[in-house]
Amino acid sequence: MALSHSKDLISRLQERIAERLPKEHPQQELNRFVNYLKDYPERGGKYIRSQLLVLSCLAHGGQLEAALDVGAALELFQNWVLIHDDIEDDSEERRGKPALHRLIGMPLALNVGDALHVYMWRVLHGLPNSQNKPEIIEEFSQMILRTAEGQHLDLNWTQTGQLDIRESDYIEMVRLKTAYYTVLCPLRLGALCADQQFPEELNEAALNLGIAFQIRDDVLNLLPSQGYGKEFAGDLYEAKRTLILAHTFGHASETEKALLIKCLSLPRQEKRPQDIDSILDLIRRYASLDYAQAVADKLAQQSLATFRLALADLNPHAQNILTVMESLATRKA
Amino acid sequence: MALSHSKDLISRLQERIAERLPKEHPQQELNRFVNYLKDYPERGGKYIRSQLLVLSCLAHGGQLEAALDVGAALELFQNWVLIHDDIEDDSEERRGKPALHRLIGMPLALNVGDALHVYMWRVLHGLPNSQNKPEIIEEFSQMILRTAEGQHLDLNWTQTGQLDIRESDYIEMVRLKTAYYTVLCPLRLGALCADQQFPEELNEAALNLGIAFQIRDDVLNLLPSQGYGKEFAGDLYEAKRTLILAHTFGHASETEKALLIKCLSLPRQEKRPQDIDSILDLIRRYASLDYAQAVADKLAQQSLATFRLALADLNPHAQNILTVMESLATRKA
Repeated sequence: MALSHSKDLISRLQERIAERLPKEHPQQELNRFVNYLKDYPERGGKYIRSQLLVLSCLAHGGQLEAALDVGAALELFQNWVLIHDDIEDDSEERRGKPALHRLIGMPLALNVGDALHVYMWRVLHGLPNSQNKPEIIEEFSQMILRTAEGQHLDLNWTQTGQLDIRESDYIEMVRLKTAYYTVLCPLRLGALCADQQFPEELNEAALNLGIAFQIRDDVLNLLPSQGYGKEFAGDLYEAKRTLILAHTFGHASETEKALLIKCLSLPRQEKRPQDIDSILDLIRRYASLDYAQAVADKLAQQSLATFRLALADLNPHAQNILTVMESLATRKA
Repeated sequence: MALSHSKDLISRLQERIAERLPKEHPQQELNRFVNYLKDYPERGGKYIRSQLLVLSCLAHGGQLEAALDVGAALELFQNWVLIHDDIEDDSEERRGKPALHRLIGMPLALNVGDALHVYMWRVLHGLPNSQNKPEIIEEFSQMILRTAEGQHLDLNWTQTGQLDIRESDYIEMVRLKTAYYTVLCPLRLGALCADQQFPEELNEAALNLGIAFQIRDDVLNLLPSQGYGKEFAGDLYEAKRTLILAHTFGHASETEKALLIKCLSLPRQEKRPQDIDSILDLIRRYASLDYAQAVADKLAQQSLATFRLALADLNPHAQNILTVMESLATRKA
């Protein structure tokens, strides 16, 4: 199997996830419950994180088989967290369909997320003896707790209506909420699957690449017609805290800040296109989109340079990691 | 330590829970997050399930120390599930204070529940080698999945507005949602802590006692001035499905059914005292409260008789289990 061909790897991961979830239930309503469990996993996704995990295992000299289950668990983590995130943000869509809580109601969707969380642990608890290592379990639970801390910081800004955040606050939040589980933890988990330790001196480079990934995500949301697949400027409608907005706030006059706060604070349904245009005008005035992309580029380039140097000595699979990593920072969608 | 004195045991469990949760966090907002994690656990509770677990371990010849951590994990399960349940039902109060999502908002509370779920697993993953058994982990994850299935059935009735449920449907739901994690699983987990298997022939008796416990809970809610500590008839305001209502529905005329559905279907805030009185009148007409209590009594008596016989051969700690079990079915609060 050509593992450089990521489609093959993705189908292997999809197969593994399907094997680890229940197929059906004899009781009609509980069979519906089983189908809800499979809903987000079957919608697909990019499988970036699980690919990075598997490739890290191979680059550290491990076997594909050893990493597939841990990769499947990482995807299940992503799926239950997205169900709960979508409830927390009252998001409209996920992977081109209505969010689960908009299909079946918030209470049922919350409960499905909890059950999927348990199925994630079941994959890890059921690892064959050779791979059943306390280090993998510990890395996983630390990863989820970091993500929850970052999520807390982000949701707390929404809860308290704090819009005028500093760039350093944003970076701290995204580091916890996104960077660990998107880049550093997949690389570390992959190494652990190969009975190796991911070198600590690469931690910062991995986290910075994760931060660059999230900034790129925020930038893409404000670039029209890029085939991004999400609603243009949806982040402004949701008043999502981004480096872009932090930069605009950092440079705006008091009057402009007041205008930003007024437009962003409106409930989603009350935001008119001209409110969004007012915000976009200010973002343009201070070139905040270019600024954010420049920060992402700089973080990504430094990070990739560090990885190129560090991975030069590893086996040929290391090149595959770099390919996935480069796509994180420069992706168009 | 006199373990028959349940206050001592409860303080040991409380201490253990406090030791397994983070104390504080250097970052101010994340320190608030840590305090939210401790909120429900510090509100107290009856510790029935964890006491049953510890006593089962002792009755099976195990040591207190072996069961304290697993008991603490069971209480943490109860706590994160209650945070999420309260969101799902939009409950007003929990243990005499506003529900967490009413204090800090739904999104932050949901996220706190997820983190507490991880801390529950961390207690189990951190068990000393002598107690770190795959059987305990498996029993725990099956227990949570059963509870989630029962919760799905219950929430689905709310979601679809189905009020006229059969008694057998109610029993099936409560068996999954309450009986496993309240009686059978604590007894089984306690036995596993003592390296024993809980005898399978007692499964049905344990589940029936759990069903009796929930029916008793539903009856208490409709008995005024019993020092129950919850709002009188709160279950009717929330249109909670109970054996009592199932019985009334099973006997009511078509006109009476229509009246029941009309009153129960009103949103909580629109229910007037006279709507609740109309429902209570019908419950009285068919003596559904007495019926439900009689079902609970019968289930509990059969179950306790089975346990008295089975536990006669075990060590003196078995008497303590019976004392806790008797309190489950006859409790006044």
